[in-house]
Amino acid sequence: MNGGIGLDRLSLNQATVKRLGLREAVELCVRHEIGAIGLWRDRVAEAGLAEAAATVRAAGLRVSSLCRGGFFTHADAEARRAALADNRAAIAEAAELGTDTLVLVCGGLPAGQRDLGLARRMIADAIGSLVPEAQRLGVRLGIEALHPMFCADRCVISSLGEALDLAFLFPADAVGVVVDTYHVWWDARLAAEIARAGRRIVSYQVCDWVLPLPADTLLGRGHVGDGVIDFGPITAAVTAAGYDGDVEVEIFNAGVWDAPPDVTAATVVERFAAVLGA
Amino acid sequence: MNGGIGLDRLSLNQATVKRLGLREAVELCVRHEIGAIGLWRDRVAEAGLAEAAATVRAAGLRVSSLCRGGFFTHADAEARRAALADNRAAIAEAAELGTDTLVLVCGGLPAGQRDLGLARRMIADAIGSLVPEAQRLGVRLGIEALHPMFCADRCVISSLGEALDLAFLFPADAVGVVVDTYHVWWDARLAAEIARAGRRIVSYQVCDWVLPLPADTLLGRGHVGDGVIDFGPITAAVTAAGYDGDVEVEIFNAGVWDAPPDVTAATVVERFAAVLGA
Repeated sequence: MNGGIGLDRLSLNQATVKRLGLREAVELCVRHEIGAIGLWRDRVAEAGLAEAAATVRAAGLRVSSLCRGGFFTHADAEARRAALADNRAAIAEAAELGTDTLVLVCGGLPAGQRDLGLARRMIADAIGSLVPEAQRLGVRLGIEALHPMFCADRCVISSLGEALDLAFLFPADAVGVVVDTYHVWWDARLAAEIARAGRRIVSYQVCDWVLPLPADTLLGRGHVGDGVIDFGPITAAVTAAGYDGDVEVEIFNAGVWDAPPDVTAATVVERFAAVLGA
Repeated sequence: MNGGIGLDRLSLNQATVKRLGLREAVELCVRHEIGAIGLWRDRVAEAGLAEAAATVRAAGLRVSSLCRGGFFTHADAEARRAALADNRAAIAEAAELGTDTLVLVCGGLPAGQRDLGLARRMIADAIGSLVPEAQRLGVRLGIEALHPMFCADRCVISSLGEALDLAFLFPADAVGVVVDTYHVWWDARLAAEIARAGRRIVSYQVCDWVLPLPADTLLGRGHVGDGVIDFGPITAAVTAAGYDGDVEVEIFNAGVWDAPPDVTAATVVERFAAVLGA
């Protein structure tokens, strides 16, 4: 396939093997010759930041991203300040872990509010406040559009185009966008928005849309190839836009979490090669 | 509120009182002084088309729309032809029932397919085939954008902008769009797309987005005012676009269906007046 991506760019997002601690997840990657990992802050904190950084470095893994910052939308000013402080800490953690990408899940409607514009302005303000720190430490903030079914409670940025409009308000070395197939595959404007994004794409995450949706729609993701997403055209568009970084497989799915991690990792590698491979 | 809508434009979509037959739903509207009803084909068929038309007419109700046509996307050519025939029948039924609006739920990915473009071309082709019949009988086809969480299995038209791009391929007297708050409220482009729609809006349907989503996401709708949707700006935009037709309250919700229909109707009227009212 033209625009295919080699296994050397595969990254395992830690959320795919949610039950594993950081060291176990790193060892899993090494066993399966996966060269990069996407880390989560809770697991990094559990291991200890310096220890986590040393573990990943000693294993020779790249850190494709740190998940995640964001959750900027609070009715209370004190809560917004606390979110900013937490995001500054996340930027510093990303730098220490050796990744240049912090993924942002920006936040839903503030409690008791219906004003999407207000929530969006809170997000723009917060990102603006974080830009100097991001630039100082060489970490790019990746705005992730979440599927519109999460608009109310997790992220009011619901399409790649909207994420891009926001990112373009800020310098390219500080703010970009995340393309996650699960969240954006349905969008008739997707190809055009990926082309418009160009080098603003700081992360490409893949997993599949599997029916029926589970009761907790957060967990409705499947292994690449198990669902309805047409990865070929999306991957080709992301490549044509100039993205040449790692590609994270990130699957939130109770069944995947309950599977033996080595089975999960083997499936991730096999599907990546078959569906996204060059 | 500027742009508010009076109770004289309230219509009860029959799906809100799903357990009632057509005659009972009509009588409910009359009891609650609701001047219009949105009908469903299964309940019309059950009552008999001529009888249904006579019942509604005798009660002095307007029929704001007939739900629904569509489901055009099939891998098999014979199934596509059958869908067209069924939609021609639906257009004729709409005309006999005295409504000028047939709501279309266009269809998801054909079984075993991942090609959104193919599904969208099937829909455009089907609508094009139906235009002469729609014009002949004075019925407008209302393309309804469904929430992106239904993209795979119910409707690949996932935003108002996309519905509009499709509608603009056809004459305005034959094809328009439905604005349903549940499906489009999250969209940062909503206000702009409603303005662009102008007189192409053939139906405005309202209900609320209530968290948490139920296991069957089709049933996650709530009474106006029970959720997070900001009806004021959306209603003002629809009014400013020139829409002056009936406004349907359409709620798919197991709890609402189990409530006594007179309680449901009273709540519909009360909320409409409080939230959308002039």
